[in-house]
Amino acid sequence: MRRFAADRARRAVAASLRGAASSRSAAASPLAPAPCHPAPPVGAAAMAAALARTMSTAAAGTPPVSLNTINPKVLKCEYAVRGEIVTHAQNLQQELQKNPDSLPFDEILYCNIGNPQSLGQQPVTYFREVLSLCDHPALLDKSETHALYSSDAIERAWQILDKIPGRATGAYSHSQGIKGLRDEIAAGIAARDGFHASGDNIFLTDGASPAVHMMMQLLIGSEKDGILCPIPQYPLYSASIALHGGSLVPYFLDEETGWGLEVDELKKQLEEARSKGITVRALVAINPGNPTGQVLAEENQKKIVEFCKNEGLVLLADEVYQENIYVEDKQFHSFKKIARSLGYTDDDLPLVSFQSVSKGYYGECGKRGGYMEITGFSPEVREQIYKLASVNLCSNVSGQILASLVMNPPKAGDESFESFMVERDGILSSLARRAKALEEAFNSLEGITCNKAEGAMYLFPRLHLPQKAIGVAQAAGTAPDAYYAKRLLEATGIVIVPGSGFGQVPGTWHFRCTILPQEDKMPAIISRFKEFHEKFMDEFRD
Amino acid sequence: MRRFAADRARRAVAASLRGAASSRSAAASPLAPAPCHPAPPVGAAAMAAALARTMSTAAAGTPPVSLNTINPKVLKCEYAVRGEIVTHAQNLQQELQKNPDSLPFDEILYCNIGNPQSLGQQPVTYFREVLSLCDHPALLDKSETHALYSSDAIERAWQILDKIPGRATGAYSHSQGIKGLRDEIAAGIAARDGFHASGDNIFLTDGASPAVHMMMQLLIGSEKDGILCPIPQYPLYSASIALHGGSLVPYFLDEETGWGLEVDELKKQLEEARSKGITVRALVAINPGNPTGQVLAEENQKKIVEFCKNEGLVLLADEVYQENIYVEDKQFHSFKKIARSLGYTDDDLPLVSFQSVSKGYYGECGKRGGYMEITGFSPEVREQIYKLASVNLCSNVSGQILASLVMNPPKAGDESFESFMVERDGILSSLARRAKALEEAFNSLEGITCNKAEGAMYLFPRLHLPQKAIGVAQAAGTAPDAYYAKRLLEATGIVIVPGSGFGQVPGTWHFRCTILPQEDKMPAIISRFKEFHEKFMDEFRD
Repeated sequence: MRRFAADRARRAVAASLRGAASSRSAAASPLAPAPCHPAPPVGAAAMAAALARTMSTAAAGTPPVSLNTINPKVLKCEYAVRGEIVTHAQNLQQELQKNPDSLPFDEILYCNIGNPQSLGQQPVTYFREVLSLCDHPALLDKSETHALYSSDAIERAWQILDKIPGRATGAYSHSQGIKGLRDEIAAGIAARDGFHASGDNIFLTDGASPAVHMMMQLLIGSEKDGILCPIPQYPLYSASIALHGGSLVPYFLDEETGWGLEVDELKKQLEEARSKGITVRALVAINPGNPTGQVLAEENQKKIVEFCKNEGLVLLADEVYQENIYVEDKQFHSFKKIARSLGYTDDDLPLVSFQSVSKGYYGECGKRGGYMEITGFSPEVREQIYKLASVNLCSNVSGQILASLVMNPPKAGDESFESFMVERDGILSSLARRAKALEEAFNSLEGITCNKAEGAMYLFPRLHLPQKAIGVAQAAGTAPDAYYAKRLLEATGIVIVPGSGFGQVPGTWHFRCTILPQEDKMPAIISRFKEFHEKFMDEFRD
Repeated sequence: MRRFAADRARRAVAASLRGAASSRSAAASPLAPAPCHPAPPVGAAAMAAALARTMSTAAAGTPPVSLNTINPKVLKCEYAVRGEIVTHAQNLQQELQKNPDSLPFDEILYCNIGNPQSLGQQPVTYFREVLSLCDHPALLDKSETHALYSSDAIERAWQILDKIPGRATGAYSHSQGIKGLRDEIAAGIAARDGFHASGDNIFLTDGASPAVHMMMQLLIGSEKDGILCPIPQYPLYSASIALHGGSLVPYFLDEETGWGLEVDELKKQLEEARSKGITVRALVAINPGNPTGQVLAEENQKKIVEFCKNEGLVLLADEVYQENIYVEDKQFHSFKKIARSLGYTDDDLPLVSFQSVSKGYYGECGKRGGYMEITGFSPEVREQIYKLASVNLCSNVSGQILASLVMNPPKAGDESFESFMVERDGILSSLARRAKALEEAFNSLEGITCNKAEGAMYLFPRLHLPQKAIGVAQAAGTAPDAYYAKRLLEATGIVIVPGSGFGQVPGTWHFRCTILPQEDKMPAIISRFKEFHEKFMDEFRD
């Protein structure tokens, strides 16, 4: 064996001398010590290593890890929400810090991501009080604590600790999450829907993203497994499908009807995928929509449920914006409520509902709390889902506590109830005003049309760009909406995500913009945006 | 298209009548409404659905998701630490709650997993004070806060908040984690190792597990990609390699030499894997060892580093037990320190060090904090790692804060320093006493030999079982060590993990047992264990 190694080393030297050491195994150093020799003391070893480095430069020129050797699925995966434009923005931000007068704006405004607290939204006091107490339970025994925390937060912290085995907030929990907290979440779901929910069906996760990955990992075995996804979609789905090596089967939302989700279109795409030999495993529905902001009508949801039932698809319902509804005439209905109201039970339809503490009025993105409620899976398959959860042991316990709180906020009569409602309604009504102000601003501009933000945290306006702008972008090898986003950033400091990161009907161009900048900043942002846009249109007018 | 659907539905009905509806597509209900019809109102729809259920029972007998249709890699993955024995223990615990006298013990003792706070270890006060303040920053403005928190914890909370953009602990952070916290961690690493470390190389993660998955996802493209793993190993590695479809290339630790890691063995296994056409991408080294508890000698680590450098392997160093050393004659050295002391730089060797807040003396498993430090990767590959991190947005911010705290605990002169050191040393010295007491107890028994727990949180004793016991277990289709573990649980309530869950030399039998039960419980546990073991040996004596 040792002789074999020596032979390989000789071949490697020969190859490096020919300058042809391109294969990974040729990276073996010709000075490799025979395995059994004791290593020399540090000083000498360092010298020998330095010598080896000098002598084997050519062989070492092939690094052990390169884009050619890593998992090609990782290369294929894209995630625009934190993509190129954000990296560019971060670089500009550093430039601003070093040299505040170097750019035509004095701050970067991150409208690329639904991250409310990064733009100044304050956390909801009651939730933070409870978390703070659970982090340091010794406080609960001290009388001074009553001077700092509301009495119902103290009581709630006790209740939560009593649900945690040994009151140990620092222990790994059950892999699905703490049973008592899951039961509380199930009670919140039942109160929301008017249908039974069980803590046994809840899997608490670090935000919704790991839950989505877990389901994709379960459902996708090869590129022959397809997942129906809306276009435009939140790129977590395309990224996760790419990472797990499946096929994204697109269905297009209809911009003309306010991003309507038509079952005809689902059917058409499903048949087309099947004709290509793809087994479609699941349908992703995002309601309220991301990036599109629409809220599905109840009748539409019924048809989607029936479609999944009839076609034997898992319904993956992204419902993380369930609290973010800004119009009077729309309401959130969970897909589970819709399915149950149609008379469908666990036997009819496997259904997963994703929820997150990052969204809602609370916007606690940094806490990474969330859950999925799974129904309609056989015990054997559930066991596999549990195994996937258990490999990561459990989600973070603060996030678990917060998930149970947002699903069961203070009730009338609780000491914190009134102040809680003031905070909650203040945030939601402000979001509604901001959504409307931005939508009107976009629609007032030449070359932009924008659907209503009925819910979620985004607008997804369409750019009707002059042909000249499209030509310039394409000549630079950039998608026209990416070109627009880059120019906007460089002129105003506003960060948006080009529509091409979400998918769109070919030949149309959009961008996603959050509605999250604080209200006092909105007029200035709108006027900066308008000024840029008008100049841009003038520059490229056909 | 509609006619096509109707045809399919007809075929499905025909198939169900023949009782042959086994294909997934046959699950389509014959009563599926044509896609364009408006859905009937709820009541009628529910009736129609119920009718459809009745009529399509046979077709619906093929569920959309079954063990035959899910990702086969998920089926293949195993995770013994939370496997069958733990599920059995949880069931017994429920039985005990319902009927306290039904079993020959009054509590379940979870020695299956390194989860100190679940067994009564108290969190370190200073860390929890800081976390509690960061969760509710409004406290920092109140004078009453000084009555409840130490002044250096208050100061530290301010420092941390000042490192977080907008002091927003509820915002998504940079995908690698908050820059200021990463810099602080890098400073802690540099102080530990005496070599430079950079915050740019730190990726904060929800515990170490997601970091391990991220690296496996990066490195494994197919079953032709191999990862050298110790046997016995922590089953996160085998699980993650299975989930990502790679090949685990085992190398055996030598029980005779206290679980020594011999480079001869590495070399042998590497060559064997290569001869099978496997490209070995990385070597996993766990130091201190899990499940084996050994601490590698510096000379041994040097040889491992040189082996990786010479063979072009990524060194994946699991160093989560770096603070858990219980013997005078051993010290922890990070692999990065070893590599740098050998004179190797970023150009020589890609190296990843995993660290977690779950272990150490703090044992904050529920907080899901951790990081990986990556060095020696090209900018293009780093970008791919960053992309993987960004798809999950970021790790939880409380965990990030805690990771920065454990790498920079209170220093001499700080108000909390003395009480902090009392807590820290109390835990570590107690762990050392418990490790020794358990080791001596195991070694005092007939048919058990046990190496020293030099570090980590486990003992991995070898069971020399009577042939009769092996025969009975095998007749029952169970591994002999799994049979032993089950019998132990049922007799004593003590949960251990069979060695077969970690891998072992074929024909040898072991179990992993944590050293974590509190000291006052140790004598009773040891005597329960002894009593069981002696009876077991008597029962099966050849």
